[in-house]
Amino acid sequence: MLFIYERKVNYYETDQMGIVHHSNYIRWLEEARIAWMESLDFPYQILEENGILIPVLGVSCKYVDMVRFGETVKIELEIVKYTPTRFDVEYTIYHGNNTPCTTGSSNHCFINRAGRPVSLKKLLPEAHEVFSKNSRI
Amino acid sequence: MLFIYERKVNYYETDQMGIVHHSNYIRWLEEARIAWMESLDFPYQILEENGILIPVLGVSCKYVDMVRFGETVKIELEIVKYTPTRFDVEYTIYHGNNTPCTTGSSNHCFINRAGRPVSLKKLLPEAHEVFSKNSRI
Amino acid sequence: MLFIYERKVNYYETDQMGIVHHSNYIRWLEEARIAWMESLDFPYQILEENGILIPVLGVSCKYVDMVRFGETVKIELEIVKYTPTRFDVEYTIYHGNNTPCTTGSSNHCFINRAGRPVSLKKLLPEAHEVFSKNSRI
Amino acid sequence: MLFIYERKVNYYETDQMGIVHHSNYIRWLEEARIAWMESLDFPYQILEENGILIPVLGVSCKYVDMVRFGETVKIELEIVKYTPTRFDVEYTIYHGNNTPCTTGSSNHCFINRAGRPVSLKKLLPEAHEVFSKNSRI
Repeated sequence: MLFIYERKVNYYETDQMGIVHHSNYIRWLEEARIAWMESLDFPYQILEENGILIPVLGVSCKYVDMVRFGETVKIELEIVKYTPTRFDVEYTIYHGNNTPCTTGSSNHCFINRAGRPVSLKKLLPEAHEVFSKNSRI
Repeated sequence: MLFIYERKVNYYETDQMGIVHHSNYIRWLEEARIAWMESLDFPYQILEENGILIPVLGVSCKYVDMVRFGETVKIELEIVKYTPTRFDVEYTIYHGNNTPCTTGSSNHCFINRAGRPVSLKKLLPEAHEVFSKNSRI
Repeated sequence: MLFIYERKVNYYETDQMGIVHHSNYIRWLEEARIAWMESLDFPYQILEENGILIPVLGVSCKYVDMVRFGETVKIELEIVKYTPTRFDVEYTIYHGNNTPCTTGSSNHCFINRAGRPVSLKKLLPEAHEVFSKNSRI
Repeated sequence: MLFIYERKVNYYETDQMGIVHHSNYIRWLEEARIAWMESLDFPYQILEENGILIPVLGVSCKYVDMVRFGETVKIELEIVKYTPTRFDVEYTIYHGNNTPCTTGSSNHCFINRAGRPVSLKKLLPEAHEVFSKNSRI
């Protein structure tokens, strides 16, 4: 269930090394997650409107090749594991010519506005359906 | 009633031109405003805890000289005008050697969580005192 | 010669006020300028490859209405004045329903890698053509 | 050889969840590395002036507890491994009350302006001394 999100590199995302600053890839992963939910007709806003937040428990990136201003990158995303209280995502970022430049992963849980972990299955069964149908495991 | 806020330039604030990206100065002005309130023993959080938000109505910057990574800049701030519903701020940013590099201004109002304009004088008289005592007009 | 650039609001562009942080609009203006050059088949990179940089001399924004995560905004851009050494841009940002939410302006010059002002007409006549043909004045 | 770097949370670092956006911690780790080098009287700029860049090969963060605007965080940093061509860093971020809120790690190498890996020992022996003396291994 791979999803691909494409985006251009912004000038303000570069640093004085002449490449994209490494912290910005972490933001691209978030963009890709949000685009993924939207592609399933279940935009992230619906979760927040239902009082469910998706904090990031962990994130990691390996930078294999530098990305520069002017490029368009493709971010491939897969939900590799989902349970009603947590999910894990894996990413590969590609240059325009399909050479991989970065790999990443992130871990998430579902909480309510009070910060308590919640079960997506109980609170929003439709969202649970979407996540479980589109997860590798 | 000039207030001076000092801060180092971060590497991630540079862009591929080898200088600080112009959008970051706008963030520095916010840092200076928040440090100013703190210096008066009236931290910004107190306002939000009382349901008062301070949105930015307008902002402007003139970039006279470039700022680079490794520098420490000084941001001079003055509240040039205050009324119970609005205030205006002016800024001059200096290099470490006190040469000015940027000037800026920002305009603000007070609103409640519903987005309605409110009078600081009515809602939080202590904050009103702090603002009016420290404003040029 | 209006140009329109459309983009989605990113989650990481919001702040704890629940709206887009005002500094991010400044970045959107840059995105719009770069998309404008690309739309004219004269991408910004060509200038940097020819040793010409376009620093920002000044920028301003008036925030009329708040923008939130989940929205798609349209940024209308016009080069209102161009001379071979400088140009001025004006912007209006619209909500998806075409209500204006922000207006802005920016001023720019052309410099070489040594930081000296240069004439676009002399250094890159093709770029000069593009700018002058597409400027209001 | 623990080094501690302290910094306030900026308002613009929060998102609409009301907490610091997770991507910003990655930037704080960079701030800590740069402050660490400065504390050893060997500021990062000296490396770049000598044509040596320190790209990030990988980065990871585990978010144990949320950080909010108004807090001052402490970032504890240790160079856990150093060789003349690479080094690894580990971080723990603490709330003001010394409760840990985030752990992180990053991996780096040394390259020249052409992007080729270089030996710090050969190119800048003084820097090699600083790194090897201050690394756990």
